[in-house]
Amino acid sequence: MADTNKQIVITELPQGKLAESNFTLTDGPMPEPGEGEVLTRAIYLSLDAANRAWMQGATYKAPVLAGDVMHGGTLSEVMVSNSPTLAPGDIVEGMTGWQQFAAVPAKQLAKLQPRGPLTNHLSVLGVTGLTAYFGLLEVGQPKEGETIVVSAAAGAVGNVVGQIGKIKGCRVVGIAGSDEKCKWLTDELGFDAAINYKTESVPKALAQHCPGGIDVYFDNVGGDILGAVLFQMNQNGRISCCGAVSQYDTGDPAPGPRGIPGLLVVKRLRMEGFIVMDYFARLNEALDALAGWIADGSLKVKEDVIDGLENAPTALIGLLGGENIGKRMIRVSDEP
Amino acid sequence: MADTNKQIVITELPQGKLAESNFTLTDGPMPEPGEGEVLTRAIYLSLDAANRAWMQGATYKAPVLAGDVMHGGTLSEVMVSNSPTLAPGDIVEGMTGWQQFAAVPAKQLAKLQPRGPLTNHLSVLGVTGLTAYFGLLEVGQPKEGETIVVSAAAGAVGNVVGQIGKIKGCRVVGIAGSDEKCKWLTDELGFDAAINYKTESVPKALAQHCPGGIDVYFDNVGGDILGAVLFQMNQNGRISCCGAVSQYDTGDPAPGPRGIPGLLVVKRLRMEGFIVMDYFARLNEALDALAGWIADGSLKVKEDVIDGLENAPTALIGLLGGENIGKRMIRVSDEP
Repeated sequence: MADTNKQIVITELPQGKLAESNFTLTDGPMPEPGEGEVLTRAIYLSLDAANRAWMQGATYKAPVLAGDVMHGGTLSEVMVSNSPTLAPGDIVEGMTGWQQFAAVPAKQLAKLQPRGPLTNHLSVLGVTGLTAYFGLLEVGQPKEGETIVVSAAAGAVGNVVGQIGKIKGCRVVGIAGSDEKCKWLTDELGFDAAINYKTESVPKALAQHCPGGIDVYFDNVGGDILGAVLFQMNQNGRISCCGAVSQYDTGDPAPGPRGIPGLLVVKRLRMEGFIVMDYFARLNEALDALAGWIADGSLKVKEDVIDGLENAPTALIGLLGGENIGKRMIRVSDEP
Repeated sequence: MADTNKQIVITELPQGKLAESNFTLTDGPMPEPGEGEVLTRAIYLSLDAANRAWMQGATYKAPVLAGDVMHGGTLSEVMVSNSPTLAPGDIVEGMTGWQQFAAVPAKQLAKLQPRGPLTNHLSVLGVTGLTAYFGLLEVGQPKEGETIVVSAAAGAVGNVVGQIGKIKGCRVVGIAGSDEKCKWLTDELGFDAAINYKTESVPKALAQHCPGGIDVYFDNVGGDILGAVLFQMNQNGRISCCGAVSQYDTGDPAPGPRGIPGLLVVKRLRMEGFIVMDYFARLNEALDALAGWIADGSLKVKEDVIDGLENAPTALIGLLGGENIGKRMIRVSDEP
């Protein structure tokens, strides 16, 4: 085993946009697991827009602070175990951070029951797919024939939301940031339409592609796009608030859109935030459904795997800029 | 019967704040009810902040346009009936507008089953009380021991919301615009605390009076007060969006508060608009409850009755400025 532990530390929190200068690659000592802990080796590191939100302060977890090894979710292999619940060779999911090795209490890790390629457990069969599943079906409550709009539609969560919407018999319109992404959504994933928000007027394109109005909006971005969608929601529509990536990579988040709360009243809209962890009691129900849709070809898996922990800062900055299609992750080390 | 029909017409829609110059008192001809219609005589005219929202454009009803007799809900007496469903002498509730007499299709009117003083059917036993009942209990879903905050708390709806909250065993904090109103809320209605938003820092006062955070916010005002409350909501809190009076009397409604939708996500908040009409299938359940609470003294009735249709513009402008305590209405003519 290596003597040192490659780590990426946040040297300074970003004031404005996240930059590579906020991170430093260091060699820390190899961690020693204590009683009840295990030593893990990271295999895949998940990159998520939420990583940036954690730098803005307390969210649903402790904030990232200057000096921290950058927080992040991984799939890791257990190397040494001082706990009866995990054994060497087990593959575990947990928040082991942007580093090769970690000593972590066993109870903070979930042992994986692999159902397909390991990477799938960071994409459609991981937090990403579960977020899409519960956020759309439980919070959004789409009914067959309704119109769903999803933003950041070519992103990790968005593309799964749209595909589940199609599986459930809905009209699905995606909003994304390039013609290439839009083409992928309609041609490969079967979205009914896709809007390039960088080149089209979102209000006009929504009116064109959602002639019957919008029943469910799965919001990954907040900001102006939420504002545009709000005005075209149907009565009793539902907005599933998953994220607000337009407001993460800034020191000065904008106020909410006009029409809040006025339009919520007039149209009896429900706007509800959720965190996927709240649904983990129903994990297996969701995994069975997702794995079934992958098996029968109705849910396509798109992953964007980048090699090398040292590339994580650039890859996260790129993700915040909308560079990726599908689920972006870092391959930290080889699969066992 | 009179030969003419005193009416108040909107001569010009307000660009900024509503003014008396937007209204004109005229004498129209006595209306003639057609087939299926009745001739009504207005007794009480309801004044509501929503009256001003109707001038901003389409809401849950047709907008008020220049030239219209001002729209408004009344309790009226049927004088002449060309419909088998209503008879002269019946008391009816409906949108007969700011005028003495109206010819209205019978099916647009609801025959009243009086349960107490007639005015109560525009206050606690009318749309006002029902809005408080369903908006708090169905949309807000308060549980015993939880903390409820209500804005415009001394207004027609707000004071009933707070009283129902106390009946249900919750801690209730009201936000209102004068020391007199605040004193009434705590001393007469049993609110646990009241905040004068014109003289106190709302965030500080909320922190002081809601040490365990806020579980349910009944929002009548939107704007900065919604913004302040949002940051002190507890996880899984609910915001019942009833109105946004801070944004009605202006030509330039402000954007929504910061933290939307970010805080909705992080705290899994639900923000839901409603219109009381959606609950009318359950009207009798609510009326039984409200009438029972009035009878046993746990719900106090506060009405602010102003004489004379010609005073309606001034009275509405005053209501938008927060002048009234309890339910404001106009006595257009004597009770039968």
